[in-house]
Amino acid sequence: MNEVQVLEKSMDYDKLVKEFGVSLIDTVIDKFDNPHYLIRRRHFFAHRDLDKILDGYKNGKKFAIVSGRGPSNPIHIGHLMIFKFVKWFQDAYGAEVYLPLSDDEKYVFGKIKDLNIAEYYAYDNALDMLALGFNPDKTHIFISSKYLPIYQHAIAISRYATFNTVKAVFGFKGETNPGAIFYPAIQAAHILLPTFDKGLPVLVPIAIDQDPYIRLTRDIAERLKVTKPAAIHSKFLRGLDGKPMSASNPETSIFTHDSNKEIKKKVWRALTGGRGTIEEQRRLGGEPEKCVVFEWLRLLFLAEDAELQRVYDECTSGKRICGDTKKELTKLLIDFLHEHRKKKLEVAKIIDKFFMHEINQDIVNQIVEQTEKEIEQYG
Amino acid sequence: MNEVQVLEKSMDYDKLVKEFGVSLIDTVIDKFDNPHYLIRRRHFFAHRDLDKILDGYKNGKKFAIVSGRGPSNPIHIGHLMIFKFVKWFQDAYGAEVYLPLSDDEKYVFGKIKDLNIAEYYAYDNALDMLALGFNPDKTHIFISSKYLPIYQHAIAISRYATFNTVKAVFGFKGETNPGAIFYPAIQAAHILLPTFDKGLPVLVPIAIDQDPYIRLTRDIAERLKVTKPAAIHSKFLRGLDGKPMSASNPETSIFTHDSNKEIKKKVWRALTGGRGTIEEQRRLGGEPEKCVVFEWLRLLFLAEDAELQRVYDECTSGKRICGDTKKELTKLLIDFLHEHRKKKLEVAKIIDKFFMHEINQDIVNQIVEQTEKEIEQYG
Repeated sequence: MNEVQVLEKSMDYDKLVKEFGVSLIDTVIDKFDNPHYLIRRRHFFAHRDLDKILDGYKNGKKFAIVSGRGPSNPIHIGHLMIFKFVKWFQDAYGAEVYLPLSDDEKYVFGKIKDLNIAEYYAYDNALDMLALGFNPDKTHIFISSKYLPIYQHAIAISRYATFNTVKAVFGFKGETNPGAIFYPAIQAAHILLPTFDKGLPVLVPIAIDQDPYIRLTRDIAERLKVTKPAAIHSKFLRGLDGKPMSASNPETSIFTHDSNKEIKKKVWRALTGGRGTIEEQRRLGGEPEKCVVFEWLRLLFLAEDAELQRVYDECTSGKRICGDTKKELTKLLIDFLHEHRKKKLEVAKIIDKFFMHEINQDIVNQIVEQTEKEIEQYG
Repeated sequence: MNEVQVLEKSMDYDKLVKEFGVSLIDTVIDKFDNPHYLIRRRHFFAHRDLDKILDGYKNGKKFAIVSGRGPSNPIHIGHLMIFKFVKWFQDAYGAEVYLPLSDDEKYVFGKIKDLNIAEYYAYDNALDMLALGFNPDKTHIFISSKYLPIYQHAIAISRYATFNTVKAVFGFKGETNPGAIFYPAIQAAHILLPTFDKGLPVLVPIAIDQDPYIRLTRDIAERLKVTKPAAIHSKFLRGLDGKPMSASNPETSIFTHDSNKEIKKKVWRALTGGRGTIEEQRRLGGEPEKCVVFEWLRLLFLAEDAELQRVYDECTSGKRICGDTKKELTKLLIDFLHEHRKKKLEVAKIIDKFFMHEINQDIVNQIVEQTEKEIEQYG
């Protein structure tokens, strides 16, 4: 079992902070003029070198954010939360945003049968990401196997890594394919691209369990004598059933292609902090700490603390029961996705402004058609 | 020590044929209407599946030749001999010729410090190769890290290999960089490119010690369910000092940039089969079997058997002494290179017709300038 696999089994965040040697977000939170609610609420709870990024910014040094995605399936609401967070850095700090779509990763690790499947999802994911309103002048997106400089940088980087160092993180075996063994160099090329191209320091938002990958790239950067990428680490957003959210288990999340009916059904079945009977709940109040529906409101929709407090109070006082909160979340999801799809159609018209290589217009057209149908069904 | 390293130490050709399980060229020589002199003289002495290539050709099935070069230094006369042999297949059989220039290989195996060095030599080597008169409609040349489909094919291929299989051939260790471990997939992509792109079976001319690399690609092709590449295996051309010819030891060969003076000096110092004194040699005759100068005439210049026989007879009868033969080889080399450079200038004008990606005209211009100077000095 490699380091990452071990981590996936233990989600004791305090322990991870110690083991990894990352710093708590508390050590830098005062450097933000107006921290994003996901930072304020400690969903992003740890970091590496974020102080350097923020101090640099105050001294006039721009930075870039790299936030990748392996395009092997549709995007869900948990992904969108992260990309909205990335966009906040663009709005608040003028960060250049790089969005690598790692089709090669998904292929070499056996998640997809051929690269064409990833190409379709790459454009679908890209449109979902870009629909959030990224600035075309400061946002750069590419499919890893379609953008030649990535392979060139990865080759150049590879001499600064060894089989042993990548094996320690990825857990390779004798049966592992050589593409997977090379992939860490490709990933490092994704992360360091803004540094290579524009001399910008890089910030990477990642879930805490992904820290070993960042550490690998930081080690490579050190040997290359370029600025080590900084990281801001998140906790996990729970899936609707209370287990980890997973794109491969559709019941755990809401995808951008889900119909209103599916959304209603999934949220209705969600894990809550409700009591055995309605009578009991009215008397004792619910337990929002246990409730995924509340967690989603807290992390996905209710950015204002006063609004969140109102829901919390109504729940714990028994004024609202689980059904009420589920309906509230359902409506927010349905309305959000309806607007989101309209924005997706708009951004599809200018998608080439974001891409670092030629786009596949046929695939974009297919996705536009699909999105139009989804909007009609919603209407 | 890996398989290839072991081989480099033992050059017992009969043993290699048995160990590798390749077939002797004698088993297919009758399938050639008019075999090339390097086949007739058994410099190319073994093969894999060449019978399938030649039988296919008789049944109207075209084929391609892939003959790569790692562009880490200037090309020498031994390389040119191989590329002339490749061109013969194009002239005699209409073969499509693919000439991959593997800058990435030279970098990941630590032969060059950065990829830019390889880029310069890639164009210099390319012009030397193309000056031999390849047909621009049937010749395809590319620098490996500059032609995106190679990375894409290599990624696709990588799933059909494992760390263990590539390690067995390349002898990787824990300190090996991940780029070197991936390189076998890149090499397989070079070899199989004509099969992927045009459905053509492939023939690869290689020195016998390189057979393990071909076998690796043949195994991959089998798993991919495409035609396994055929091979035609050569013996080694000895260097002027009698040891293996090596681009990293300039005294062992004649390079396309060598001056007349260097050529004269190097050939004059060559290992021959001469006797202790001129008197003795006039009486006993020389021993052409031991003589590198004779070997070079036999493999590089005297394609006509009658002509070669005349030199042999004159030598063994004591009619000519070593100095005569050295002067003959020197003149042939100087005249050949003078004509060669003029052809190099000609082909530089149409180099883009051969390249599968955009060319670097600045580098081509530098090489043209250098070649013009070399011609002047020769004049």
